Amino acid sequence: MSFVQDIQKEIDSTLEAVLQEQVPQRRGPLDKFSKVLRYALFPGGKRFRPALTMAAAKACDGNKGAAVSIGAAIELIHNYSLIHDDLPCMDDSCLRRGKQATHKEFDEGLALLAGNALLTDAFVVLSELPKRHSISAESTIEIINIIASCAGSSGMVAGQVLDLKSSPKISFPELEFLAIHKTGKLIYASVMAGALTGKPTQEERKALEKYGEAIGLVFQIMDDLDDAKSSVEQRTPEPPRASFVQILGVEESKQRASELIGESIKAIKIFGKRGAPLVELVELLGSKLPLNIQG
Amino acid sequence: MSFVQDIQKEIDSTLEAVLQEQVPQRRGPLDKFSKVLRYALFPGGKRFRPALTMAAAKACDGNKGAAVSIGAAIELIHNYSLIHDDLPCMDDSCLRRGKQATHKEFDEGLALLAGNALLTDAFVVLSELPKRHSISAESTIEIINIIASCAGSSGMVAGQVLDLKSSPKISFPELEFLAIHKTGKLIYASVMAGALTGKPTQEERKALEKYGEAIGLVFQIMDDLDDAKSSVEQRTPEPPRASFVQILGVEESKQRASELIGESIKAIKIFGKRGAPLVELVELLGSKLPLNIQG
Repeated sequence: MSFVQDIQKEIDSTLEAVLQEQVPQRRGPLDKFSKVLRYALFPGGKRFRPALTMAAAKACDGNKGAAVSIGAAIELIHNYSLIHDDLPCMDDSCLRRGKQATHKEFDEGLALLAGNALLTDAFVVLSELPKRHSISAESTIEIINIIASCAGSSGMVAGQVLDLKSSPKISFPELEFLAIHKTGKLIYASVMAGALTGKPTQEERKALEKYGEAIGLVFQIMDDLDDAKSSVEQRTPEPPRASFVQILGVEESKQRASELIGESIKAIKIFGKRGAPLVELVELLGSKLPLNIQG
Repeated sequence: MSFVQDIQKEIDSTLEAVLQEQVPQRRGPLDKFSKVLRYALFPGGKRFRPALTMAAAKACDGNKGAAVSIGAAIELIHNYSLIHDDLPCMDDSCLRRGKQATHKEFDEGLALLAGNALLTDAFVVLSELPKRHSISAESTIEIINIIASCAGSSGMVAGQVLDLKSSPKISFPELEFLAIHKTGKLIYASVMAGALTGKPTQEERKALEKYGEAIGLVFQIMDDLDDAKSSVEQRTPEPPRASFVQILGVEESKQRASELIGESIKAIKIFGKRGAPLVELVELLGSKLPLNIQG
């Protein structure tokens, strides 16, 4: 998957540049704080969201440099949410990506502030798109609006509230609402913000909206399937929480993911070859499924 | 102080409108979450930062409606910082504005998420300035950039890190650096963002930069003086932390605040009558001091 690997490098070096520019270079506590931020950001996960941003930019003949910056900003937001999700008052997780969670490696106060810094700095990065990448101020505003709306109290935070406070026995529509907000909205924003570095037609926008909504859900279903699998393998019962596997069972969850993957690929047919990276990313996401892709 | 009282009403109704628009209207946990946000925002403090935004807009013949929205966004950011500062891993304060702190009234998870929601929603509000108040996209980008930079890891968060981790015996320059970041930067941003709803000249910008920097420090010195006073009155020794009173003593702290007030008033003389609200706000801030204002 060379497309994704290339992107990881570009995103990582952009994130490194953001850190060097933002945190005041001082000895003492601020020097330590920049270590906390680095610890939380590197080594990263798959950088799947930035890859979506760049794939959507490619589909819309958009601005590649701007897509890298937007991808980095979204990765800052994604990592803020992980740091905070791991805190004792949330999921209380000690491990993240095979190493100590940020609040375990440092302390809760620094982890809280690191999350806040990453979230806020994402908007610094976004507000520099016109200066750094000649994106119009109008498009930049639209990009900021989509990302902030999808991350805030009508987006990801709403999903986190539901995840924290819902009964594990919620209905399927409630579970879908939760997943759309907790995970789907930021993935949707990753796609749409990438598109806006180009000049998508109304039809192209609609196609990407469908694609973004579908794969946001696929992402959460696959995550739930992974969690269920590793909990069986490691013989550690999962704590009771609302998940697709819990509500639909394994087979029906796979079936639902497979349908959504089919829908997402169908939606972006209009891009032809320019849509290839978008197709590649869905296939990567669904590569563990017995796929039944029509479309 | 009619100027400030009028502003409180306008800001409160704008904040109420933001809450109604942002949080998805659902029963269950999200209904409770909107109560958490309301609890944290109302009744508010003096709404001093929005008052600065509006006063700076007035000085620059700016857009009043936009200044109200910006003021509300800054108030969202300010209140996010208070909710998080009160958490056990930070200042561990049980009380805020004479009532239970948000995490005490609800729980830590909801308080954490409420802070995150307010911070993120601030950027939703700011990104709607062109649509709602005919502010140009270019000015909006500049406003977002100033506010995000002043709130993020090179601004307020840096100050919070220093406040959390510095020895109470830091030097005066280190204390000033801490105060400038923790408190001063967001106050500076409140002033500059208000100015940008108009078309300030370079000279006017410079004047407001001086004003904003000076009163940011005044604000922190007055806060430290207040804390010292109430700790003496209530006979509760203050926990050791770096403060102006601790480092300079009461009299020298007052003297420093008085000098900075003089400087700030001198800086904005060029606005003539249009600068009256800016003067009123500094005087309000310094009203507990034996003032020696020249300028």
